[in-house]
Amino acid sequence: MQTTGVAVIGFGTVGTGVVRLLTEDADRLADAAGCRLRLRRVCDLDLDRPRSVDVPPDLLTADADACVSDPEVQVVVETVGGTGAAVDLMKQALTAGKDVVTANKAALAERGAELFEAARRADRSIGFEAACAAGVPVIRAIRDGLIANRLSAIMGILNGTSNYILSRMTATGAAYDDALAQAQAKGYAEADPTLDVSGEDARHKLAILAALGFGTLVDLEDVYAEGIQGVSPHDLQFGGQLGYVLKLLAIARAGDDGLSLRVHPTFIPAGSPLATVSGADNGVLVTGHAVGDTFYTGPGAGEQPTASSIVADVIDAALGRAQQTFRHVTWLAGRCPRRPVQPIDRVRSRYYLRFDVVDKPGVLAGIAGVLGRHDISVASVLQHEPTRPDSVPLVITTHEALEGNVTSAMEEIQDLPSMAGPTVRVRMLDPHQAVETP
Amino acid sequence: MQTTGVAVIGFGTVGTGVVRLLTEDADRLADAAGCRLRLRRVCDLDLDRPRSVDVPPDLLTADADACVSDPEVQVVVETVGGTGAAVDLMKQALTAGKDVVTANKAALAERGAELFEAARRADRSIGFEAACAAGVPVIRAIRDGLIANRLSAIMGILNGTSNYILSRMTATGAAYDDALAQAQAKGYAEADPTLDVSGEDARHKLAILAALGFGTLVDLEDVYAEGIQGVSPHDLQFGGQLGYVLKLLAIARAGDDGLSLRVHPTFIPAGSPLATVSGADNGVLVTGHAVGDTFYTGPGAGEQPTASSIVADVIDAALGRAQQTFRHVTWLAGRCPRRPVQPIDRVRSRYYLRFDVVDKPGVLAGIAGVLGRHDISVASVLQHEPTRPDSVPLVITTHEALEGNVTSAMEEIQDLPSMAGPTVRVRMLDPHQAVETP
Repeated sequence: MQTTGVAVIGFGTVGTGVVRLLTEDADRLADAAGCRLRLRRVCDLDLDRPRSVDVPPDLLTADADACVSDPEVQVVVETVGGTGAAVDLMKQALTAGKDVVTANKAALAERGAELFEAARRADRSIGFEAACAAGVPVIRAIRDGLIANRLSAIMGILNGTSNYILSRMTATGAAYDDALAQAQAKGYAEADPTLDVSGEDARHKLAILAALGFGTLVDLEDVYAEGIQGVSPHDLQFGGQLGYVLKLLAIARAGDDGLSLRVHPTFIPAGSPLATVSGADNGVLVTGHAVGDTFYTGPGAGEQPTASSIVADVIDAALGRAQQTFRHVTWLAGRCPRRPVQPIDRVRSRYYLRFDVVDKPGVLAGIAGVLGRHDISVASVLQHEPTRPDSVPLVITTHEALEGNVTSAMEEIQDLPSMAGPTVRVRMLDPHQAVETP
Repeated sequence: MQTTGVAVIGFGTVGTGVVRLLTEDADRLADAAGCRLRLRRVCDLDLDRPRSVDVPPDLLTADADACVSDPEVQVVVETVGGTGAAVDLMKQALTAGKDVVTANKAALAERGAELFEAARRADRSIGFEAACAAGVPVIRAIRDGLIANRLSAIMGILNGTSNYILSRMTATGAAYDDALAQAQAKGYAEADPTLDVSGEDARHKLAILAALGFGTLVDLEDVYAEGIQGVSPHDLQFGGQLGYVLKLLAIARAGDDGLSLRVHPTFIPAGSPLATVSGADNGVLVTGHAVGDTFYTGPGAGEQPTASSIVADVIDAALGRAQQTFRHVTWLAGRCPRRPVQPIDRVRSRYYLRFDVVDKPGVLAGIAGVLGRHDISVASVLQHEPTRPDSVPLVITTHEALEGNVTSAMEEIQDLPSMAGPTVRVRMLDPHQAVETP
């Protein structure tokens, strides 16, 4: 049976998971895959920290250069993270003739072009199933399983931390800060949660999925991102009354005037599969012209789910399939054109707007008038009895409108004398958009 | 760019879909996959019937032998169906050095061993993504994406016809016969729907998924199957009141005393992803020790979704990945042991039992007594005011019990003088079973 040497660089949470699978399940993996994966090196700058898995001491090293040039290593697993040293290591490994497997979405989203170029030059591959939706094999679904389709949309809940926070807020009515604190206590959020709650992490993942699914180069700057910081439980509640669930949704759609690429809090119809993705799970809805809607969901983070996808990619490289994929598939093989991306102002969407207004006659007429003049058609109005004497929330949902028009209308409405606070805008997914090809 | 010749044998619905993709999307497919698929032959006994896609007349033939021996053909797509001539054709094609792609679940479930043996002898591959859940790439998910996992369960809604009928009955309260007639009118059910509604089609698919996921040989006779014929809208309604949705569920679970392989109507907790699979869709929940629960859903039938998966498999063969997979992966490579399968009597499950009883004192005590003596513990009781003078439905759900005990208890209860009709038994999925590793 063929043996493939593996080096794991970065012995943190994910690295530990990979080492655990490769050592504790070695025989079973060999049997399942028909090739033996042999752990040759485990590299980390800090080798003294206790880990939850045993590694023979002679495999441990702090010398990453030695790993990527070791002739006994055919596949290098990079779990260092970040867009600096990790990228250099991956390029070194490729140049040395190793296949690379990584979960590093930041590196792929920001420096994917040069990484792929390095892989092509060396006729090697980069596996990155774990970079999007961790354990859910959505990269394979898009890249291999749906390859016969012209995709029209990829929509995903791609950040487990944000989804956990929003799920808690929805379930318990908790405020954002309290739900964040719970997420941190449970280990679902970092001490500094910015990367997750700002939408930046989902933005990285969307850039990768869109590039793969639409066969295009994606500049990260072209992906609009808005986070969940400051989302109010009131809006989750009002949205719920209208039949919607709030999610941080990453959207890639192909339209006549280019791609729309954006990450923002989105009201999703409660009946959509996307609305069922709860806690720290991820979920991705992929729509193709032949297949229609397909949906994938599962754990979006964690040691073992991430390791599951990384080891699958190692096997893909060991069997020689990953290299074939890399030589041929559009984006990976570098054959893809750059497709135009709509600026956010040109996006069409439905909107949930909440105005804090003074409770007096003519307010609704004034707001509706501004909306009408900006070509924004009202779909529904929700106004409860006032609970505070000075202001009352007025919720308006719109039919599909142009984002730029909504921005202009919001600015104009903000100047009306009847406004008692800032306006909240949340984009809404049409029921038919959530389940069908547009 | 490399060119791969493709022959499509069987020019019915699915064959038409494949021909459509290969001809109308030829350039885009070549660009996406980095290899050109050239349609060389389209074979059917009836070439006069009008089709919805144009084929150059010189490609059409009624001579299947010529297709499978044509030196210009590298991949043979079999859409003839059945376990007779189709199997012979596939074996001929493999022996002639062609890779084979098929959606023929009956052939794979009943004669998979000899087909795979023929493929191995010829060092060729058989692609069958389209055989389970049509357009949803669940074969790739299990075979490639989750390969690093020890799977504990595969649970699927694998028959679109049955799911459509049950979805209609649930949504409208229609009787089985009416819902079946609607399914037939919409083209979701055949004039003779037996294969679908008896559970036989799902049984074929489950046998394939279980063999692949558990790396074992599966004898079709070891897969227990019960269909949806005669399901009563009353039970759907009672189940709904208890928070459950009825689905024809295919279950493969690995336990200490062997595999449990079965297809039967099952009450699924309304919160489970499986419960959201509606209409003619399919959905599969796959649980692995590393990844946890992952879920896949989408169109489970139809010309285009099936063709989507077939063409993906053709590309896999054209790129040389399918052959690598076939050489190595356990079941396909013929390295797998036969794992013991639990007889249905040894299965443990929760149960929904509906008794039609005469409305008089002591009835519940009598039934509960029998259940208790068979080690069956009652979880809930639901009895409505009688609507008919002579009998009243009494619904009892149980905690986990042994199927054999339930069968014995039902026989004993049936002899009680208070019984006014036959007892209905529906297996229930525990909420934790529907979403977590057991």
